[in-house]
Amino acid sequence: MITSNKIFHKGRIFNDPIYGFISIEDEIIFRLIEHPYFQRLRRIHQLGLTHLVYSGAHHTRFHHAIGAMYLTKQAVDTLKRKGTVITPEEELGVLIAILLHDIGHGPFSHTLENSIVENIHHETISTIFMKKLNEEFDGQLSLAIEIFNNTYPKKFLHLLVSSQLDMDRLDYLQRDSFFSGVVEGSISSERIIKMLVVANEELAIEEKGIYSVENFLIARRLMYWQVYLHKTVLSAEFLLMNTLKRAKFLAKNNKDIFATPALKQFIYQNYTLDDFDKHAIIDKFALLDDYDIMASIKVWAFHEDKILSLLASNTIHRNLYKIKLSSKPFSEKDVLILKDKTKKLLNISDEEVAYFVFTGTVTNSAYNPKKDKINILYKDGSINDIAHAADLLNISALAKDVEKHYLCFPREINL
Amino acid sequence: MITSNKIFHKGRIFNDPIYGFISIEDEIIFRLIEHPYFQRLRRIHQLGLTHLVYSGAHHTRFHHAIGAMYLTKQAVDTLKRKGTVITPEEELGVLIAILLHDIGHGPFSHTLENSIVENIHHETISTIFMKKLNEEFDGQLSLAIEIFNNTYPKKFLHLLVSSQLDMDRLDYLQRDSFFSGVVEGSISSERIIKMLVVANEELAIEEKGIYSVENFLIARRLMYWQVYLHKTVLSAEFLLMNTLKRAKFLAKNNKDIFATPALKQFIYQNYTLDDFDKHAIIDKFALLDDYDIMASIKVWAFHEDKILSLLASNTIHRNLYKIKLSSKPFSEKDVLILKDKTKKLLNISDEEVAYFVFTGTVTNSAYNPKKDKINILYKDGSINDIAHAADLLNISALAKDVEKHYLCFPREINL
Amino acid sequence: MITSNKIFHKGRIFNDPIYGFISIEDEIIFRLIEHPYFQRLRRIHQLGLTHLVYSGAHHTRFHHAIGAMYLTKQAVDTLKRKGTVITPEEELGVLIAILLHDIGHGPFSHTLENSIVENIHHETISTIFMKKLNEEFDGQLSLAIEIFNNTYPKKFLHLLVSSQLDMDRLDYLQRDSFFSGVVEGSISSERIIKMLVVANEELAIEEKGIYSVENFLIARRLMYWQVYLHKTVLSAEFLLMNTLKRAKFLAKNNKDIFATPALKQFIYQNYTLDDFDKHAIIDKFALLDDYDIMASIKVWAFHEDKILSLLASNTIHRNLYKIKLSSKPFSEKDVLILKDKTKKLLNISDEEVAYFVFTGTVTNSAYNPKKDKINILYKDGSINDIAHAADLLNISALAKDVEKHYLCFPREINL
Amino acid sequence: MITSNKIFHKGRIFNDPIYGFISIEDEIIFRLIEHPYFQRLRRIHQLGLTHLVYSGAHHTRFHHAIGAMYLTKQAVDTLKRKGTVITPEEELGVLIAILLHDIGHGPFSHTLENSIVENIHHETISTIFMKKLNEEFDGQLSLAIEIFNNTYPKKFLHLLVSSQLDMDRLDYLQRDSFFSGVVEGSISSERIIKMLVVANEELAIEEKGIYSVENFLIARRLMYWQVYLHKTVLSAEFLLMNTLKRAKFLAKNNKDIFATPALKQFIYQNYTLDDFDKHAIIDKFALLDDYDIMASIKVWAFHEDKILSLLASNTIHRNLYKIKLSSKPFSEKDVLILKDKTKKLLNISDEEVAYFVFTGTVTNSAYNPKKDKINILYKDGSINDIAHAADLLNISALAKDVEKHYLCFPREINL
Repeated sequence: MITSNKIFHKGRIFNDPIYGFISIEDEIIFRLIEHPYFQRLRRIHQLGLTHLVYSGAHHTRFHHAIGAMYLTKQAVDTLKRKGTVITPEEELGVLIAILLHDIGHGPFSHTLENSIVENIHHETISTIFMKKLNEEFDGQLSLAIEIFNNTYPKKFLHLLVSSQLDMDRLDYLQRDSFFSGVVEGSISSERIIKMLVVANEELAIEEKGIYSVENFLIARRLMYWQVYLHKTVLSAEFLLMNTLKRAKFLAKNNKDIFATPALKQFIYQNYTLDDFDKHAIIDKFALLDDYDIMASIKVWAFHEDKILSLLASNTIHRNLYKIKLSSKPFSEKDVLILKDKTKKLLNISDEEVAYFVFTGTVTNSAYNPKKDKINILYKDGSINDIAHAADLLNISALAKDVEKHYLCFPREINL
Repeated sequence: MITSNKIFHKGRIFNDPIYGFISIEDEIIFRLIEHPYFQRLRRIHQLGLTHLVYSGAHHTRFHHAIGAMYLTKQAVDTLKRKGTVITPEEELGVLIAILLHDIGHGPFSHTLENSIVENIHHETISTIFMKKLNEEFDGQLSLAIEIFNNTYPKKFLHLLVSSQLDMDRLDYLQRDSFFSGVVEGSISSERIIKMLVVANEELAIEEKGIYSVENFLIARRLMYWQVYLHKTVLSAEFLLMNTLKRAKFLAKNNKDIFATPALKQFIYQNYTLDDFDKHAIIDKFALLDDYDIMASIKVWAFHEDKILSLLASNTIHRNLYKIKLSSKPFSEKDVLILKDKTKKLLNISDEEVAYFVFTGTVTNSAYNPKKDKINILYKDGSINDIAHAADLLNISALAKDVEKHYLCFPREINL
Repeated sequence: MITSNKIFHKGRIFNDPIYGFISIEDEIIFRLIEHPYFQRLRRIHQLGLTHLVYSGAHHTRFHHAIGAMYLTKQAVDTLKRKGTVITPEEELGVLIAILLHDIGHGPFSHTLENSIVENIHHETISTIFMKKLNEEFDGQLSLAIEIFNNTYPKKFLHLLVSSQLDMDRLDYLQRDSFFSGVVEGSISSERIIKMLVVANEELAIEEKGIYSVENFLIARRLMYWQVYLHKTVLSAEFLLMNTLKRAKFLAKNNKDIFATPALKQFIYQNYTLDDFDKHAIIDKFALLDDYDIMASIKVWAFHEDKILSLLASNTIHRNLYKIKLSSKPFSEKDVLILKDKTKKLLNISDEEVAYFVFTGTVTNSAYNPKKDKINILYKDGSINDIAHAADLLNISALAKDVEKHYLCFPREINL
Repeated sequence: MITSNKIFHKGRIFNDPIYGFISIEDEIIFRLIEHPYFQRLRRIHQLGLTHLVYSGAHHTRFHHAIGAMYLTKQAVDTLKRKGTVITPEEELGVLIAILLHDIGHGPFSHTLENSIVENIHHETISTIFMKKLNEEFDGQLSLAIEIFNNTYPKKFLHLLVSSQLDMDRLDYLQRDSFFSGVVEGSISSERIIKMLVVANEELAIEEKGIYSVENFLIARRLMYWQVYLHKTVLSAEFLLMNTLKRAKFLAKNNKDIFATPALKQFIYQNYTLDDFDKHAIIDKFALLDDYDIMASIKVWAFHEDKILSLLASNTIHRNLYKIKLSSKPFSEKDVLILKDKTKKLLNISDEEVAYFVFTGTVTNSAYNPKKDKINILYKDGSINDIAHAADLLNISALAKDVEKHYLCFPREINL
């Protein structure tokens, strides 16, 4: 009963409540999905603690990765049909690249991205995982890695994996909309994919798909404010971050803290990118998932450190910060008053109050033409950024960053 | 077996694939639905010939009217819960007003609005129907009529029936999206309705509903270009209009034209608003529906007039105009060339060619703040037009009219 | 602007709210869909007057035919993948056969099947249409006709088109469920199709699909009693049948009756199968659709014959019979009493009362193993009728006919 | 930031992708949901390891409990409307009873029901939790407990919570169908609830709802074989059970085993019902959830005991047993051969091989009239068990138990 001796049958099926049946045609795809690195994604929520607001949102990165691969297959079929040359090797490469694009995510994904391992982006870790897998699979992932890192000549393959209109986004919008029940976030990936075309080695959308793209951008924006940056979701994420931060602080001060073995390492040590490369930290990281975090936090609720136990207990029992959002910064005076009240209420110090009262900003732009553009292919053969499309006057507005200030403080305190 | 002797049971149910069960609580609502005037709406497509492009879009004005009434009931419940006083009479009034808001629509609704009866808007005819029903029902519709015509003091009741965020629009967007399969047009009427509030006797949306409204405006805009003003739909509608126009032209010239009795009147006579008032034309109009039009056009396909038979046959067999859309006007020269070619091809005169080659414009603005605004109620109690909301920079862009020029000509001709 | 000169592009798309995009790959399929014979199906409701109960059920035979063809394509792909040899010609043949399987339906389909043309089944007319089309298309439909008539050696192709688990049923159950909103009627055509296999030239289902088939049979049964044989739907259909019957009776007695030209023929004449063959009646029949019926009935509501005007007016205004269902026959005495009361109420004769008071039976069996079986292919290679499957003890029960007696009478009369 | 000081607003909303918005009207319902006992359900999967087969099935008991309460509210409204007297106290009581009906579930629910705490049914633990909460809430749950335990005179209230057609089942079928994507399992809770009626203090279904009930029974049966007893799901559950069993075995033999503090207690001790009553074990149990199990199993994959590490590692990496299902028992000889091969392969003892090769049976009956019946209320006022309904001949067949034998063994071994 040692791993990976399962027999592969062409056409193995994954059930998806969104797309129906997803069939797997290549053995290597099957082997990658079976690999412990990938199975780990079953234990990482796609949306962290969002289920505290949208109770259905318990779907995982595992499901999303397979869904994004399914859409990429549809896109490849469409492009081939329109005459774009994509070799079987390239097709497999882009499918592997999208399948593994999120494999570097740690527990609670974005929320803890800089708390577990500092200053290392999850995409960097994805690349490290891919390289390790490439060794195990005798170089069969080389082309996928080139596509993922955008060093492969046919740039449009990379754009399917990562761009402002990539298959990643098409899948997560639909998926997050489905599981959260925020129906307005729904888009038609089918319609958008049918409009895809390659022009000048770039990905573009046929002119008649222009309103579908507009709708996609607006749906994404809505999902940001309604779900991803929903104020209660933010509040929960800040609480989780602060809980872990306090645990790391205590660990640094040599306090004894329970943690699952996998988590313990990352609480008591600060790893650098160098450690990942040289000291096989990647295999320790591969043991870490949401279960380590929540199982440990549940224990911390009984820790002798008052700050840690309060933060942990609040996380577990959904006793979140009160949070205010505003388009303007909050007055420093108000923040000071809140801090004062909190210090008295909880009988804590100046440093400690920062765990309970804090401000900051969140930003979102629906469309960021500086990174890469969404190209429209017009009937006369010309290509243009969607932001300049004649009858979509509002796209340029979408490109502006929307910044919101937040202020968090204990629920017991009044502003 | 004379009409209207059915027994009313409180809670009679209408099946709706969108909302599930819709139950009827008031006998007068039941009697109005049973009335021949209202049953007629079963025979009028909500979207005219749109099913020629979206084959599922065969839903009727009957279904829409009941759906819009259902949403209005939800809105009334929400507002009452938030403390707005709405008396039982007012509640019944607004339900009747929305139920009957489209009762004046003729066959093929918007398409033939000015072909069957010229210069009389369907809302005017709705009012005439309501007045007749009010007589039959001994004045029980008086309050509904006031609400419909916006003469009732509590203006917000009228706004539920007719405004930029009325229950009419909430229903038709969802319904048209459902039956056409254009999923991106879907909105969350439930979420929007939960955010409704009355402030200063106006309808407003709570601040946190701002992104849902934005999404609603964009979804509506998408539905306009993707469905309502889809170029093939436009082409079909122009063909239908021209077919009727030719029939009326021939009738005016005393040619013999088959038509069902109900339609015959309106082809051989031109009625004015005055006729409706004085000569009981309303009861003749009440006999007219989509079946009269299509059944007659099918016969016209064999008419001796070459123009009429060609137009009719093309309508029946979905042999539509070729249509071009452009943001700029088409060159007069091109149009002349097309007309010339068409005259030769069909061997027709200068006047006749206008039935086959023509240009024009269609316009749409997603949000029209000149008519009435969508108000946002902020947490500090202030009210403001959504177009001025800080982080929705693109709403003002939505308010701009988008105008497109079209050019239609026979499919056999090349431009 | 003469028909059939449209340019075909591989991959033309039909929108379907159920399956999404359906693309057309073969020019002949496109040409057949464009043909007036097929376009006529746009004007024939799939479910007759069912929309009087389920207001959303306005979908047409046109949409169903294309949907069934889509499912057949999925089935063919599945079978080919499992090693069954299906040549491109056979694939095209079965697609054409299913596309045209209902082309012989007249207006209001099943309801008027024996009222418009007596003693000729719609499948016979479908064959006549196919033969005519085969001439027009230079013999390209020959293989399709063999499959349709089950004379082609590979019997499983016919079974895809017509059997107890054919693509026709898979489509109409899903479609009727979707448009009526009776969600319990939903099935998973995707799952069933994935389980299809050819064994001994028969269609079979893999063993593990056994519960899906059971569910399909039960869903179909539910749809029969909940929708197709819903008592109010039956009542409406009887009323429509009687209306037409009266019109034909009057015509036979040389009364003057308005009808659209297409309908007039079929009211004043009784055609036989021979007429279809010899006198090109098929082309007259091809002009007939739901619009002729309803447009004519609307006029009959004002006919001088009291019986006809009453029946017609009741049909139009949804003033249906009261209907009782029972597992036992109704007492003759009760029927006589009802007839007596009705004669008095309406002041009509003994013969005439039969239009208003009548009884009969409707029957349904969910599974009919006498016609053809649903085969299960077991893992050991054996094949067996699903009715004998070990753990589905109730299938045999499903095979029993369920018969119900109905009694119709005017709503004004009490039993 | 101490718990339970949140302010309650009437009409607080829970988002549900199935029902839309669920609003909470009573403060005590809100307080119970906020309580740590109930919040714990957020961390218990509704379907254990089913997500290993249906990747979307990550929904929790928390969500199900709130959904079942929502349906109960609909049922109460329907019954009251039909004249059944339900006082406000009774309404609140039944809502609380259903909300808490599953609160006694431990981690991985049914799978580990007899592994964590032996011989104590989850309903017993639910009652213990309710009693504790009743103390905290000053007796406000007394009526709910009576309803839950079926000691309240109005028996139909209990039947809403627990019977063959209770709101529990209506919710979980819809919910499990939605999240797994097994669409055939969908039922219409709306239609069934509308048919509910109280007759002779029993819950019954109006005659015309008979086909909906049949469909419900068949859908449930399908869900059993397709999802709940799916062979791969069974295999995963057996693996999880055996893993825990081995851990408890080692603990009993004083081996050192890592476990989260909450789990440690239950691995090293065997608690009886008496312990729950006398020693406040309930509060320790309340700390236990899926996270403790998975976090501990992840560590066990590295345990020095070969058996434990193999079982644990297989669980984590989805390296499940091969499983065969059969309607007949497996031959003892075959089992012995498999055991022999396994002993050699893994180099383990006679006792140890039982963790890897074993047989047993699973049983399901779609309808169990011995427990309590589903009553049909006929139009003549009579009540009868649905199994005797005239035209549902197959219900009695549904009442028969279907038993299947299973045989599990390592994937590396061939039978």
